[in-house]
Amino acid sequence: MAQLRDLKDELDIVIPTIRNLDFLEMWRPFFQPYHLIIVQDGDPSNTIGVPEGFDYELYNRNDVNRVLGPKASCISFKDSACRCFGFLVSKKKYIFTIDDDCFVAKEPSGKEINALEQHIRNLLTPSTPLFFNTLYDPFANGSDFVRGYPFSLREGLPTAISHGLWLNIPDYDAPTQLVKPRERNTRYVDAVMTIPRGTLFPMCGMNLAFDRELIGPAMYFGLMGDGQPIGRYDDMWAGWCAKVICDHLLLGVKTGLPYIWHSKASNPFVNLKKEYKGIYWQEDIIPFFQSIVLREECTSVQDCYIELANKVKERLGPIDPYFEKLGDAMVTWIEAWNELNPPPPAQTATVAHPNVAMKN
Amino acid sequence: MAQLRDLKDELDIVIPTIRNLDFLEMWRPFFQPYHLIIVQDGDPSNTIGVPEGFDYELYNRNDVNRVLGPKASCISFKDSACRCFGFLVSKKKYIFTIDDDCFVAKEPSGKEINALEQHIRNLLTPSTPLFFNTLYDPFANGSDFVRGYPFSLREGLPTAISHGLWLNIPDYDAPTQLVKPRERNTRYVDAVMTIPRGTLFPMCGMNLAFDRELIGPAMYFGLMGDGQPIGRYDDMWAGWCAKVICDHLLLGVKTGLPYIWHSKASNPFVNLKKEYKGIYWQEDIIPFFQSIVLREECTSVQDCYIELANKVKERLGPIDPYFEKLGDAMVTWIEAWNELNPPPPAQTATVAHPNVAMKN
Repeated sequence: MAQLRDLKDELDIVIPTIRNLDFLEMWRPFFQPYHLIIVQDGDPSNTIGVPEGFDYELYNRNDVNRVLGPKASCISFKDSACRCFGFLVSKKKYIFTIDDDCFVAKEPSGKEINALEQHIRNLLTPSTPLFFNTLYDPFANGSDFVRGYPFSLREGLPTAISHGLWLNIPDYDAPTQLVKPRERNTRYVDAVMTIPRGTLFPMCGMNLAFDRELIGPAMYFGLMGDGQPIGRYDDMWAGWCAKVICDHLLLGVKTGLPYIWHSKASNPFVNLKKEYKGIYWQEDIIPFFQSIVLREECTSVQDCYIELANKVKERLGPIDPYFEKLGDAMVTWIEAWNELNPPPPAQTATVAHPNVAMKN
Repeated sequence: MAQLRDLKDELDIVIPTIRNLDFLEMWRPFFQPYHLIIVQDGDPSNTIGVPEGFDYELYNRNDVNRVLGPKASCISFKDSACRCFGFLVSKKKYIFTIDDDCFVAKEPSGKEINALEQHIRNLLTPSTPLFFNTLYDPFANGSDFVRGYPFSLREGLPTAISHGLWLNIPDYDAPTQLVKPRERNTRYVDAVMTIPRGTLFPMCGMNLAFDRELIGPAMYFGLMGDGQPIGRYDDMWAGWCAKVICDHLLLGVKTGLPYIWHSKASNPFVNLKKEYKGIYWQEDIIPFFQSIVLREECTSVQDCYIELANKVKERLGPIDPYFEKLGDAMVTWIEAWNELNPPPPAQTATVAHPNVAMKN
């Protein structure tokens, strides 16, 4: 496999946090060449310690308010959903975002995993959402498309999202945490796969990379935490929205490698309180997203996202007034995105792909 | 995880072959308790040697003709597609089929893999085709559904098919074999996953198990080999048909573990001759299968398959007269199936599933 670029000048690492970032010490060999965007959650008068030698910018709530003015209302407070502010202010093509309780994991051989390098590999090689390859990623070293894979689809589609996984503490909901407090993920699955078109997945924000130019405006983490009826659904919300839009725009989403080491389970009792509305709302939200057909005229992520916001208000609004507010915040987010990321003069977005018949 | 049944009296092993079955020696510890159905391909006057101590029945072409009479025309000759005759004459609930150049593979730890045991585990635990679980099989030991997985879907759906993989010689088409003659599959991916609803996959017949009661009549391997314009698409054909029907009837298809050791690459020049029509036809066949919507009234596999046969003739017939013949053979196959497998008096098949909104 060809050597991939390291993207040093093209990728920002976004970290939401409320504490000193000592966890960066372990990541130093891998992260130090990159620029960090730290989004400080909670009390802005606290000081966040960042280990020496890292290149970073740090935004607290006062900064968010100053940068966005009244539009700051779309950025959550007291919830890791605030990380999407970092996506907004970045000027780079790629984003990697990681939680501050995530450490370097090891392969079964004992070798430390450079998670960022694997995400870059995932993002810079195509995805295959239109047909399933049973030997997993055909672009991985020593792999290919199997017999019966249509040749017209072997170029693949551009990859928008790379979703990494977690060893040790799995990303369980509060009920599962309560029922299986001691379960640890020890299974190292040596695979990257494309999530097929038309299939939703639960996207976790703990260890996640994406192409900001391809899908950035859809990576809004919603209204969570302080003053909201729900928490711990920020990344899920972004994942549902982003996947539906990737499917429409013929972009790929990969999941699997790289693993990080997730060190600490959050409190399941606190989580239950944050999640419980999400747990029953998702029974309606997921069929809603599964049934969405975006208009063909929506050829940019922004177009798609505004259409989605309207549908959220119209079809989820009746469930709870929260979804009206969320739909409005989605529109505000796009306004903020466009303000901070004005399109280049000759932008041409297109949804057409020569070999693909739309299957909606 | 609970101890699973071994299915000794409920599963037949089907082996198509043209040679002595010495490969069974290596499988003896795993296969000897089971009944084998050997389908002898080619010249019926040849004698196939079967190692001592195995319980088997063997059918050659004369037997196929005797059992099926004029309907024997639907069973391919000089092609491993003849294996489906074994599915037809079995009286068991489950089938495992394996090629005679497949040997026992080893886990990375060096432990020999009991492929049949893993297939049984796959078949006896539910599938999750309606939503993607990022930690793979939620029913595997030490695993579960991740945060954001809808609770209403966690019971899963019955599993109809378990598709196993291959270490050493990967299942490549002739062009890929020619381009990468030395590529070997050494990547042991420790995962079983459900192929999502609405997604087709290339099903390989080398290492395959299924629930005959749930999906048997769809496991027809088509018209291949002697007198036909095509070969090496027998399992692909069965896979496309079976997956579309599983999606319609809300049944699951799993792929991944177990691995077998595939010992010998077939001749790529011979394969190219067999495959070349399939390679270009599949560019039309796959969009055809991707676009199929079966009528709601089709509530049995047989109903679905007859409907599929009609669509094949109608929509693929214009590509080549072969598909007219294939559509007729599909109908003959179902007639033969019903003759040899009369439905029990009080058969009740139903397509409805309480928690699932059909998404066609």
